[in-house]
Amino acid sequence: MLTIAVTLGDPAGVGPEIVARALADALTPDARYLVLGSEPVFHRAAERAGVRLDVRRVSSVRECGDSRFSIWPVGDDVVPAPGRPSIETGRAALAAIDLGMELAMARKVDALATAPVSKRHIAEGGVPFMGHTEYLAARAQVKHAVMFFTSAKIRVALVTTHLAVRKVAAALTVDRIVSTIAIADDGLRRFFGVMEPRIAVSGLNPHAGEGGQFGREEIDVIAPAVEAARARGLNVEGPLPGDTIFRRVMAGDFSAAVCMYHDQALGPVKTLDRAATNVTLGLPFLRTSVDHGTAFDIAGTGKADAAPMAGCIKVACEMARATASLL
Amino acid sequence: MLTIAVTLGDPAGVGPEIVARALADALTPDARYLVLGSEPVFHRAAERAGVRLDVRRVSSVRECGDSRFSIWPVGDDVVPAPGRPSIETGRAALAAIDLGMELAMARKVDALATAPVSKRHIAEGGVPFMGHTEYLAARAQVKHAVMFFTSAKIRVALVTTHLAVRKVAAALTVDRIVSTIAIADDGLRRFFGVMEPRIAVSGLNPHAGEGGQFGREEIDVIAPAVEAARARGLNVEGPLPGDTIFRRVMAGDFSAAVCMYHDQALGPVKTLDRAATNVTLGLPFLRTSVDHGTAFDIAGTGKADAAPMAGCIKVACEMARATASLL
Repeated sequence: MLTIAVTLGDPAGVGPEIVARALADALTPDARYLVLGSEPVFHRAAERAGVRLDVRRVSSVRECGDSRFSIWPVGDDVVPAPGRPSIETGRAALAAIDLGMELAMARKVDALATAPVSKRHIAEGGVPFMGHTEYLAARAQVKHAVMFFTSAKIRVALVTTHLAVRKVAAALTVDRIVSTIAIADDGLRRFFGVMEPRIAVSGLNPHAGEGGQFGREEIDVIAPAVEAARARGLNVEGPLPGDTIFRRVMAGDFSAAVCMYHDQALGPVKTLDRAATNVTLGLPFLRTSVDHGTAFDIAGTGKADAAPMAGCIKVACEMARATASLL
Repeated sequence: MLTIAVTLGDPAGVGPEIVARALADALTPDARYLVLGSEPVFHRAAERAGVRLDVRRVSSVRECGDSRFSIWPVGDDVVPAPGRPSIETGRAALAAIDLGMELAMARKVDALATAPVSKRHIAEGGVPFMGHTEYLAARAQVKHAVMFFTSAKIRVALVTTHLAVRKVAAALTVDRIVSTIAIADDGLRRFFGVMEPRIAVSGLNPHAGEGGQFGREEIDVIAPAVEAARARGLNVEGPLPGDTIFRRVMAGDFSAAVCMYHDQALGPVKTLDRAATNVTLGLPFLRTSVDHGTAFDIAGTGKADAAPMAGCIKVACEMARATASLL
């Protein structure tokens, strides 16, 4: 039996309601789910959503036993009005992440699926927080964790993530690009059943620089990185223009794309598909997330779409299952 | 009767064959078509494509008369093997653009539709050439021409075009963004039948900067530009995250998006739709283009998709018709 830990995200955001609705639809027979977050907030969200779940209250994974749904209370004293985040809701959200990470690192759970948090409200509590990906990588002392998205139509890994566009060019190095390609290749093999990954690498500039006319990063950094990756035995092509690379991936020419920056990857992914799952590759444990934010403006209204959260939990199960089958 | 001028693009590229095939399918009863390019290259391409067109050879628009298809020979001495561009093919392609522009400026034709050229082979001939958009704007002495894309699903205007990503942030100014919004608004009204345009303006950085955490251009430049555009009576919202702005446009919340840079706009557009049309707004004449390149690698093989060129000619007709109806 797989155990999937699911954080509620910021208790004032849409996290609690989408987790409740996603779990109500979670049909995998081989997994049990452990919710990490405020118990009163979760029950309030489930009730408002009309979701009835038999949830066991636990303070260890062992106690979950044969219960399909359990909750390990974190931050029960924080019960904000929906849409009213604060330093306290940020702290509670972070405490759930920390617990989830601890359980995952200790292999007490098979994967961690996370609901959205507010970077700002966590950071205001005094903890530097650029995003789950960066935070988990730093805490796990991993040199390079890769933000990776998987949807029905596309898979893509990012070389840089939450970085101002002004700083992207300088952040691209041969080592970082090769490492992203290698981590994506490894992830495709281990978690997504791709036996022989073929990876498309994007350029940075319009038309991949068009021979140096619109920027030289393709010539100076990206092409050498593709060569270096090939020398390591990886099946890679590029740099390809960032505006047409996804057509090639969708046509089946490649198993995944490696993109240079956030919107180059996420623009096409989110335009194509409203429910892509964000996967962190390169951590010593499995972690998935939704690709959207806390949506404080619609929290508590019932308008939030639970499909991305359901997809995120499903991908966590699939990855955990693939890992288990390798053991 | 409308007259649409159509350049063949680089004679060694896919231009001649896609123009021949697109014209064979051009069913608009109210337009005649004037091809600008090498006559032997056009006939060779048409023959290989199995396209039979009754084409009148002319050296003035008046001579086109009641002929549905005419050709004004340009660069007849340049008959390259497909896929073998040179300085000569670049020069021939440019000469056709110059003629088309001259006819359009003199209002002898109603619109100019252009097939793809090779920036490199034109530039090697000694003429600085960053792209049709920039070239036509400079020759027409227009301070600001806007690259705009229209497809079945999306319309988008670009603030910057063929510019290295490294240089994008510094190129964004309040004036340029407001001017792009205003030109897009005007174009939507005049050419696309949108009576009350609502325009979404993207941010530059991931999550539109997330309150300044990943870059300050949203706060310092883009938000003030949106305010200034509103003060001019334009219906504008933004800055919105670049990765979700197109979902909002597709949902009907907006008539069009204004994006900050090339791939932010073109990634989603080209991933969604294989036949978006590139329109230059702000010129003193109508000009459309395909959104792809010369594809020298498949020129002459018959593999090139003529749908984008057919779309580009159709949009030129529609825009010319809308303009005519306003007179």
